[in-house]
Amino acid sequence: MLQINILYVGNIKDKFYAEAVQEYEKRLSAFCKVKNIELKEEKPPENPSDAEIALVIRKEGDRLLEAIPKKGYKIALCVEGTQISSEELAKKMASVTVSGDSEITFIIGGAFGMDERVKKAANYRLSISKMTFTHRMMRVILAEQIYRALNILSGGNYHK
Amino acid sequence: MLQINILYVGNIKDKFYAEAVQEYEKRLSAFCKVKNIELKEEKPPENPSDAEIALVIRKEGDRLLEAIPKKGYKIALCVEGTQISSEELAKKMASVTVSGDSEITFIIGGAFGMDERVKKAANYRLSISKMTFTHRMMRVILAEQIYRALNILSGGNYHK
Repeated sequence: MLQINILYVGNIKDKFYAEAVQEYEKRLSAFCKVKNIELKEEKPPENPSDAEIALVIRKEGDRLLEAIPKKGYKIALCVEGTQISSEELAKKMASVTVSGDSEITFIIGGAFGMDERVKKAANYRLSISKMTFTHRMMRVILAEQIYRALNILSGGNYHK
Repeated sequence: MLQINILYVGNIKDKFYAEAVQEYEKRLSAFCKVKNIELKEEKPPENPSDAEIALVIRKEGDRLLEAIPKKGYKIALCVEGTQISSEELAKKMASVTVSGDSEITFIIGGAFGMDERVKKAANYRLSISKMTFTHRMMRVILAEQIYRALNILSGGNYHK
């Protein structure tokens, strides 16, 4: 069975996002195993300077690099990545598994963005939107897109 | 005070999405008045044909056209619209209000998409992503983006 890992900085504070993620992951369990790897968020001082923000990104980057599974295909979510449709994400996931990888790790950075080293460590950079979303909302969007992709691949009629 | 209307087909079934929308609309009330205009969703038969889907879109389109406020600037959310960043959305909203419109209506179509006539009736077509989202999730994303835009314009430090 396909193993999906969601590697993520920070916990989900908002109850509604936590419930939404839970719901999609429950539905996902019909198609794959899902493992959440939640890493500690770095707390910047109030009104952080650019250097302080860079430090947060670097420290969170260290944690992400250490936690990235050695095996499998890695997809980093970042705004400068490639935008693809839900159907194309489904095809992408199919081609990864056909090539022999039975493990796909999606990586979501922290509130201030993702370290360049993490982006380089990934096999693919995926952009969901030109808009900036909260990284917590991103986790819901990602769970729904993975569910949508696996539903497309299984010939399901999920569409809303 | 700026008036934001969210014109929308279908109710929010999932409790977590309803709560998320509620939370962002509460925060939005510091910046603007928000009015939700929720229209009845058309129920297609099981496994609808293309013609049946087209009929759903047309009927929902009739309702949207009737409900669109006469006044103000209208922004239709559709996948073939223009993608802009959150900062650009903020600038767009600022330029609309500077030009004298104190009312902006965002329009979200139903589960099967938006009638072409509605898209034509809008002043602007906005695309959030190449990916397909549920139209319920779209309402959360939109509320968060409007909040983010108004926060940017007010010089706030909301970023996550």
